[in-house]
Amino acid sequence: MFARTNLPEWAEFVVGGHEIRQGSFRESAEELARQKAIDPAAIERVKDDLDALDARVLPGFLAGSGSVVEKMADRWRDDVSSAKDMIDAIQADLRAFAQDNDLAHVIVVNLMSTEPVCSYFDNGILAQLSQEEREKRLEEWTRWEAFSQLLRSAAPPVVSASTLYAAAALELGCDFINFTPSLGATPPAFEELAKLKNARFMGNDGKTGETLMKSVLAPMFAHRNLNVMSWVGHNIFGNRDGVVLDDPRNKATKVASKNHLLTQILGYEPQTLVSIEYIKSLGDWKTAWDHIHFEGFLGTPMTLQFTWQGCDSLLAAPLVLDLARLTELARRKNFKGKMDFLACFFKSPIGVDEQGFVRQFEQLERWIHAMEE
Amino acid sequence: MFARTNLPEWAEFVVGGHEIRQGSFRESAEELARQKAIDPAAIERVKDDLDALDARVLPGFLAGSGSVVEKMADRWRDDVSSAKDMIDAIQADLRAFAQDNDLAHVIVVNLMSTEPVCSYFDNGILAQLSQEEREKRLEEWTRWEAFSQLLRSAAPPVVSASTLYAAAALELGCDFINFTPSLGATPPAFEELAKLKNARFMGNDGKTGETLMKSVLAPMFAHRNLNVMSWVGHNIFGNRDGVVLDDPRNKATKVASKNHLLTQILGYEPQTLVSIEYIKSLGDWKTAWDHIHFEGFLGTPMTLQFTWQGCDSLLAAPLVLDLARLTELARRKNFKGKMDFLACFFKSPIGVDEQGFVRQFEQLERWIHAMEE
Amino acid sequence: MFARTNLPEWAEFVVGGHEIRQGSFRESAEELARQKAIDPAAIERVKDDLDALDARVLPGFLAGSGSVVEKMADRWRDDVSSAKDMIDAIQADLRAFAQDNDLAHVIVVNLMSTEPVCSYFDNGILAQLSQEEREKRLEEWTRWEAFSQLLRSAAPPVVSASTLYAAAALELGCDFINFTPSLGATPPAFEELAKLKNARFMGNDGKTGETLMKSVLAPMFAHRNLNVMSWVGHNIFGNRDGVVLDDPRNKATKVASKNHLLTQILGYEPQTLVSIEYIKSLGDWKTAWDHIHFEGFLGTPMTLQFTWQGCDSLLAAPLVLDLARLTELARRKNFKGKMDFLACFFKSPIGVDEQGFVRQFEQLERWIHAMEE
Amino acid sequence: MFARTNLPEWAEFVVGGHEIRQGSFRESAEELARQKAIDPAAIERVKDDLDALDARVLPGFLAGSGSVVEKMADRWRDDVSSAKDMIDAIQADLRAFAQDNDLAHVIVVNLMSTEPVCSYFDNGILAQLSQEEREKRLEEWTRWEAFSQLLRSAAPPVVSASTLYAAAALELGCDFINFTPSLGATPPAFEELAKLKNARFMGNDGKTGETLMKSVLAPMFAHRNLNVMSWVGHNIFGNRDGVVLDDPRNKATKVASKNHLLTQILGYEPQTLVSIEYIKSLGDWKTAWDHIHFEGFLGTPMTLQFTWQGCDSLLAAPLVLDLARLTELARRKNFKGKMDFLACFFKSPIGVDEQGFVRQFEQLERWIHAMEE
Repeated sequence: MFARTNLPEWAEFVVGGHEIRQGSFRESAEELARQKAIDPAAIERVKDDLDALDARVLPGFLAGSGSVVEKMADRWRDDVSSAKDMIDAIQADLRAFAQDNDLAHVIVVNLMSTEPVCSYFDNGILAQLSQEEREKRLEEWTRWEAFSQLLRSAAPPVVSASTLYAAAALELGCDFINFTPSLGATPPAFEELAKLKNARFMGNDGKTGETLMKSVLAPMFAHRNLNVMSWVGHNIFGNRDGVVLDDPRNKATKVASKNHLLTQILGYEPQTLVSIEYIKSLGDWKTAWDHIHFEGFLGTPMTLQFTWQGCDSLLAAPLVLDLARLTELARRKNFKGKMDFLACFFKSPIGVDEQGFVRQFEQLERWIHAMEE
Repeated sequence: MFARTNLPEWAEFVVGGHEIRQGSFRESAEELARQKAIDPAAIERVKDDLDALDARVLPGFLAGSGSVVEKMADRWRDDVSSAKDMIDAIQADLRAFAQDNDLAHVIVVNLMSTEPVCSYFDNGILAQLSQEEREKRLEEWTRWEAFSQLLRSAAPPVVSASTLYAAAALELGCDFINFTPSLGATPPAFEELAKLKNARFMGNDGKTGETLMKSVLAPMFAHRNLNVMSWVGHNIFGNRDGVVLDDPRNKATKVASKNHLLTQILGYEPQTLVSIEYIKSLGDWKTAWDHIHFEGFLGTPMTLQFTWQGCDSLLAAPLVLDLARLTELARRKNFKGKMDFLACFFKSPIGVDEQGFVRQFEQLERWIHAMEE
Repeated sequence: MFARTNLPEWAEFVVGGHEIRQGSFRESAEELARQKAIDPAAIERVKDDLDALDARVLPGFLAGSGSVVEKMADRWRDDVSSAKDMIDAIQADLRAFAQDNDLAHVIVVNLMSTEPVCSYFDNGILAQLSQEEREKRLEEWTRWEAFSQLLRSAAPPVVSASTLYAAAALELGCDFINFTPSLGATPPAFEELAKLKNARFMGNDGKTGETLMKSVLAPMFAHRNLNVMSWVGHNIFGNRDGVVLDDPRNKATKVASKNHLLTQILGYEPQTLVSIEYIKSLGDWKTAWDHIHFEGFLGTPMTLQFTWQGCDSLLAAPLVLDLARLTELARRKNFKGKMDFLACFFKSPIGVDEQGFVRQFEQLERWIHAMEE
Repeated sequence: MFARTNLPEWAEFVVGGHEIRQGSFRESAEELARQKAIDPAAIERVKDDLDALDARVLPGFLAGSGSVVEKMADRWRDDVSSAKDMIDAIQADLRAFAQDNDLAHVIVVNLMSTEPVCSYFDNGILAQLSQEEREKRLEEWTRWEAFSQLLRSAAPPVVSASTLYAAAALELGCDFINFTPSLGATPPAFEELAKLKNARFMGNDGKTGETLMKSVLAPMFAHRNLNVMSWVGHNIFGNRDGVVLDDPRNKATKVASKNHLLTQILGYEPQTLVSIEYIKSLGDWKTAWDHIHFEGFLGTPMTLQFTWQGCDSLLAAPLVLDLARLTELARRKNFKGKMDFLACFFKSPIGVDEQGFVRQFEQLERWIHAMEE
């Protein structure tokens, strides 16, 4: 489909990043090979590239990442602690990365572990505040000037790392992609910022497995007027993402992201259950069992079950590559702001109502065709 | 979605038909209740309607229906044997039905068992014929005048009952819906006929379960560029349809209808296997297990399996009602010919390339919206 | 297999009981019929028996049953509150039941909802006690005299209803079957009591579905030396039992009962996960998905998954009938004490090491054959 | 369990064999590695052993192996064609193998592809013969002298390769294990021969996956008196065994072997369906979906489904090693004739009625314990 699209070639990209754990890319790849996710021979073929990549990775920041992530961390920047200083430090690294590698532009992709829900903007907590304080936070949520002041206040950051990186990137005119369900650039204030800086952003949470299936199957039930009574989804896997999501605080963010779309597609709220459990032996093999209980004509209950057995990393990785290439294409075509046409990549596309996968993909098709003209 | 559409109410319809078995609707409903497909109390509520319906059912015709169906038949019209006479007799019944019930219009829906492949137009057999004979059959296939002569020739019919009913209906200006994979009105000659007579038709083969799932899931693999290596589908069920499909000749027609769409959606031909087996204890509960073996990034094989447990009759029945109402709406809106906008109802929509379910449904949405204006 | 066994006929039994909810057996049966678990016609056939049964049901006692059960209760005995008084009241009802119905013997079967773990004997709490207090509790756990004093002390009961009923029954020489994972007659003190009173008892927790499957499948992995790395079991259902188990305190007792046997059969402890979730639409249809990850020769990981779709009540009911008949047979054959030969009926057979289902069943076969001689 | 058993060590064995295809063990192992069945590093570790093994493999015989196997064959012995000459040639190879490797004893294991049903002893064909001819064949089936004459007659062999190898081995006093469902040493005449020559034998058809599951699950339904209405099993896989079983003649032998045991365990004949299909992409990963439809108390139908995803070769290989070690142990303990105690290894244990896996395993346990004394 993209044959006629002038997509930037992958060879035009240089990859670098921040990381809070020691260890090399080669070790990570070998871990995946031991889990039967990738072929050992494939690692051998690209080992020099992996080593070169290690050299472009610097220590990152922990902020509101949750205690499981903090326990995993063994090399991170703890020399600065205020939001302002962290953003300054991130921006310094971004500038240096661009300069050292002679880059026209930098795209920041958030691939950190899922963060706990950001309590500062949490609805439950907002409800308990004074009218005045609530209005202040709403202003911060929606207007960049207010949000910016919040970030620059002297206190330790009230938002988590994902949002600090988003702010750092967009302020510099870099693009920002949030591949996780963390807050990132979700507040509407960031759309204002992106447009101001001629930058682009999108998220949240790459749609790779069970939720992809939901966004594919739910339209069938809607269009056939089959009433979904309950939709149960159990997810088990054993990679590092699984370790983090085993913490209830981090899991809450993820479950919310996996769950909302059914109601949006169906137009009513069936009973749902989403579990995510860490099962060590599975490694990267994310296995999901979904049980969908529905009724049709005359109310007889019927059942659809599916089991999805996929390699989490292998399903996510190509989406990250495609997002980078499409974001860069958007820049070259002078698009700025929130990239709604990338909705099909995300479990919770920011500010997009359409949750059905095929219709989201059609949106991408239309944009691509417009770009080709 | 259809709230603003002026769809004909079901109360405007009168149902009658042809049948080749004895036995009442109430008995059939009770059989379904014993199979746990419908609630016995529901039958009690409509028993008078069911009895009234029995009175509007007349004996039908057997022609190329296959030996299993012939064995089931215990009341059918055997007083005429040529295609011409059968068509005349069907038309007489249609006229009488309209007159007796004071109807403005009649829609004929083919709900007969799947017929064996029609050998007269079978590609394998065509290949063995003389050039002249092949050209004659192509002419018959595509032009109504030639097809009409074929039907009116003195010999016993070379096409099966589904096509005789289609011809009888459309010649009278009645509409024809083919809810089975039998030949019906598939030859392009019937489009010419329908337009000539201001009639409408569509088919083939109601998309109710496993194939519906295929048309929903295959676009996901295509849009995510996940290479489907094999797609295996095993169907087991125990209703009368299952008995008929247990005959390899009838089954061949059905399997072809369940299988083609993957290649059309994916753009390549994965290894496929479709089995349909009669398992008595299941009754109307059609159970399908599909195993989809695919590979993504770096070629690691992954698996999606699903099990569909649905009541065959309950999934099919509302589609038949909807097709009747939409066909009548089309008539009132002066549409004539082949109703492509109904593609989402069929496994093998006649002459329609799009096999993805959501895109087919969008076609219906667009037509409905156009009708509302 | 039991053709030659002189099992008591069901017609020899009279059924009565204690209940803490209002409502008739007919209403409960109709609820099951609405959930498609039983045939409405079957209820019609036995409606007089059901009504007669209602008349033999008296209000029961709540004690340590947990807040969910307390919320459900709408008719229970609240006129007495000490353990001693409750036991006296239960015994008065048992004596009256035997007398009114002219019975030779009474068998008490505990079918109450699962109770929270009994904290008085909980290992975690014991560990925090003084040496002296721990020894006192150990004495109570193992010797009837000490346990009896504990029950007769003036304070409100430290054990839950299941144990009060067990004590009341066995002291009277009635038999006691614990069909739930609650404490019941588990303390060894009850074996002493049963022998003293010529009574019989057994439990715990009827083995009806997923755990039955575990006790059938785990021996296969053990005997083929296939190393089970993880065994995940997700249970969903929507009957009243499901409501109670949705409370984490009650659920903890159940999960422990469903989980221990794998380690006993395999001889090592794989990672396990057991979830039990209330999904309203399923009603009595308990659905379990188990994912077993194992490795064989050369360490390649393989997978077995199963889905069990059974009616909880229909799987449990015949076990209760069989247990009653076998217990009465044991009495007639002068057996007294703990009935180890009934192990195959229970998830957690009291004091029995063998957890494999077939070997448990062989134990029953041997006992039956011995009884036949 | 076998810790106290003085089982022969694997190091005491030397492996050689006959093969009808070219290609090395290393190539076969690499093929398995490409199919993700084994780890490439494991092959590297034993490559010298694999090469040494190649040197001990000689061309084998084709006889009644079926056309698919014949098409695969690219190096076989075609210099002799009568049964007598083939047996002589096999025996010469066996003697040389023992002598060259200085072996005390040789065990022959049949690992050839499944052969078509042997028509000479097929019941359907027997029924069409004269009384005299039927009696002659019965004599051959049951008495070694008659079978021996049949083999020594001048005509081309009426039995297939598996039986020729069995005869060659047992006549020499070598042991014979039939790991396939082919005829092998099934005729009772071979038991006479084995005892005469102080040799041992057993078969048929290694029980590795779906049928193992059947022999584990069917006793549960029997012991719980759950009536199995239908048992459907679909097997898909893509190794060379799958290619052979795709031929209906070879498949018939296999399906019979996978199907009979349900009736034997349950005591009645549910409707069954066993399919075996070649799906190339699966390679060695044999996937089985079984759907078991059963009814319990009050006749409500319930369902158990399982999906087995195992590496065919890795499940079979350790059984072959164990069979060799146990057979050699039996020789050292002076056991001779048919080894019934090995029944748990086979789908169709010759002349053994017990088909339940756990009870078969107990038979092995009892024999092992007797050997330890």
